[in-house]
Amino acid sequence: MKQSQLFTKTKKEAPSDEVAKNAQLLIRAGFIHKEMAGVYAYMPLGLRVLENIKKIVREEMNGVGGQELMMTTLQPKEIWEKTDRWDDAKVDNWFKTKLVNGTELGVGLTHEEPIVDAVSNYLGSYKDMPFAVYQIQNKFRNEKRAKSGLLRGREFLMKDMYTFSRDQKQHNEEYEKIVKAYFRVYDRLGLGEITYRTYADGGIFTPRFSDEFQTLSDVGEDKIYVDEKKRVAINDEIFTDENLEKLGLKREDLVEKKGVEVGNTFHLESKYTDALELFYSDEKGEKQSIIMGCYGIGVSRLMGVIAELFADDKGLVWPENIAPFSVHLLNLGEDGEAEKIYAQLLKNGIEVLFDDREAQAGQKFADSDLIGIPYRAVISKKSLAAGGIEVKKRNESESKIMTVEEFLQLLKK
Amino acid sequence: MKQSQLFTKTKKEAPSDEVAKNAQLLIRAGFIHKEMAGVYAYMPLGLRVLENIKKIVREEMNGVGGQELMMTTLQPKEIWEKTDRWDDAKVDNWFKTKLVNGTELGVGLTHEEPIVDAVSNYLGSYKDMPFAVYQIQNKFRNEKRAKSGLLRGREFLMKDMYTFSRDQKQHNEEYEKIVKAYFRVYDRLGLGEITYRTYADGGIFTPRFSDEFQTLSDVGEDKIYVDEKKRVAINDEIFTDENLEKLGLKREDLVEKKGVEVGNTFHLESKYTDALELFYSDEKGEKQSIIMGCYGIGVSRLMGVIAELFADDKGLVWPENIAPFSVHLLNLGEDGEAEKIYAQLLKNGIEVLFDDREAQAGQKFADSDLIGIPYRAVISKKSLAAGGIEVKKRNESESKIMTVEEFLQLLKK
Repeated sequence: MKQSQLFTKTKKEAPSDEVAKNAQLLIRAGFIHKEMAGVYAYMPLGLRVLENIKKIVREEMNGVGGQELMMTTLQPKEIWEKTDRWDDAKVDNWFKTKLVNGTELGVGLTHEEPIVDAVSNYLGSYKDMPFAVYQIQNKFRNEKRAKSGLLRGREFLMKDMYTFSRDQKQHNEEYEKIVKAYFRVYDRLGLGEITYRTYADGGIFTPRFSDEFQTLSDVGEDKIYVDEKKRVAINDEIFTDENLEKLGLKREDLVEKKGVEVGNTFHLESKYTDALELFYSDEKGEKQSIIMGCYGIGVSRLMGVIAELFADDKGLVWPENIAPFSVHLLNLGEDGEAEKIYAQLLKNGIEVLFDDREAQAGQKFADSDLIGIPYRAVISKKSLAAGGIEVKKRNESESKIMTVEEFLQLLKK
Repeated sequence: MKQSQLFTKTKKEAPSDEVAKNAQLLIRAGFIHKEMAGVYAYMPLGLRVLENIKKIVREEMNGVGGQELMMTTLQPKEIWEKTDRWDDAKVDNWFKTKLVNGTELGVGLTHEEPIVDAVSNYLGSYKDMPFAVYQIQNKFRNEKRAKSGLLRGREFLMKDMYTFSRDQKQHNEEYEKIVKAYFRVYDRLGLGEITYRTYADGGIFTPRFSDEFQTLSDVGEDKIYVDEKKRVAINDEIFTDENLEKLGLKREDLVEKKGVEVGNTFHLESKYTDALELFYSDEKGEKQSIIMGCYGIGVSRLMGVIAELFADDKGLVWPENIAPFSVHLLNLGEDGEAEKIYAQLLKNGIEVLFDDREAQAGQKFADSDLIGIPYRAVISKKSLAAGGIEVKKRNESESKIMTVEEFLQLLKK
């Protein structure tokens, strides 16, 4: 797309009340707009990144047999009363609203109850299981403080998956399959090596630990202890000798780190299915409890984590597979040749942001660094004289002159 | 996908409180789940249809230069007070909620104010215009009655576009370009011939009429008068001699019809931009008002309209370009051959729902009619003996035996 037509523009300053680096950079580069603390709108560049992350998450969830659906934001209180999660004294971060007739409604903060309620229309027999459903949808949580940009939102995009299994064996198979898919997601996002499966509290209704997926970061809110050899970690909140022994971890192998939770997976046992009276019939026709798992990935949080972690002092640095465009093509006064090369890249299916604006070279370079598209390709009198376009990767310092054909070869790798 | 793995199942009956035909059929066929009146969750089959409609709408909005973004559901009251649309006495269908500290928030029912607020970060000069932004996003409206299934929701999916222009001439060009794109959307959805551009009240801040896009239907809530030759209509609410004269319409050319509003376009003049103090500088550096237009398409409503209009007494009948799958492949006891043909169709990029369930032929035929996939392809001893698969279009009564190659040819047309 032509940058002269993109309605957003870069800014020198972020709003003075914005303290998180990820949000500061994303606002300055025109990716997001702050509606209020913890609530951000996605401008075209930001939406493109978000959609690219969604695509990766969706492909991996489909890959383990997940069936995508879309639950509702408005929630009837009855189903939440059955699990004792309606009362604000029990769950303190609800947003609630009312119908004109006064009926109280919830604004979806998670979806275990409505998922079980929907599934109960269809699930009856042991033959129906196992299966996994998921959605990628906004969640609403009434957080007291929301100062970390996209890392902790009041309205944020989440992938939540739920599995239904006939017994623990079937549940464990589903659970481990999904944990593997989680690491494929983090690998594809460039976070695999710094993200740890981290044992955490499982909740009061299971004897098991839950798993958090913690990406190492200085801005992380969680304290974790990492065993780098075993590639696992344990959350500070369950860091006791008893638990270390259960998990086969040794104090001397562990290093304290800060992490951002970019996913979590829980064993729900039959807490929700029992409470909402969803059972199945086994081979003998006998009524049995259903074992559930639930599996979250913070999609917009991941965008914030990646913005924050990969940025340098000049701006954002996007990994290639989630960048808003692959190439930032800068025309420095060679309109005819630049238009031709732009058309040629588009024809080859390359996603290009074409800086065709009437602006100083310095402004174009600074904007390009701030926006953080993986390849910068400059067309100038100098580059043409040297034989083509001057190509530089955002995360490298050396540029190189190449022909369009050579550049296309490089992009196709 | 294999139907044995699809977690939804068809049902003989819809919920007894569901009176709308579109919702009854969509619930029975497993496309949607009713959360409460006017609030529906989308199960996998339904989500596929919705995504297909979104794709068409998105392509046409991108085609007229629309830039996609995503605004927020949670809304700060300050921006709505500036346009006097916060007070429940003025706007009676808000859902409202509160932060923990008591601050009132709105739950997004439309987005003129937040869009103007976001755009004001970037728009300054006459050179920045015209441009169009849009989103495809859930809206929340506190309707007193919601009994029409997907035709009138409390939570529903809408495409809303907003244009910013420097003057009326530029605005009119944008407006008419978008109206043309609307008809491309309705044409692609199979509704073009029964959808009329319908003059309606423009609101108190413009002397102009707005346009509604009304699809003729007996379940429509709107009374309109259609001029079939001119392919336009006029809404009952502005049906006066004075307006007929303004519009060059004659009483004797008009036929009374019922319509469902599947889109609307408004001239907003400078009401919202002035109120939110967004202006631009012209060539002389002088401050000028910005002319806005807004343009809605009810995406989930369109799904309901299509379900309702095209259904027959056996079930749903989806147009080919929005159907959840292209082919419903029914295996009647020929497992080996059926699996082979299923694999062959998938290899050719065909979207197939493969009924591999252990079920009676009668059940499979009835489910196939209810779900409404465009092509039904049956593999049975009889069909194989006759030379292949028995293919029937959902909206035709005659079936035909053909080889897989012939079927692939037919699908590629």
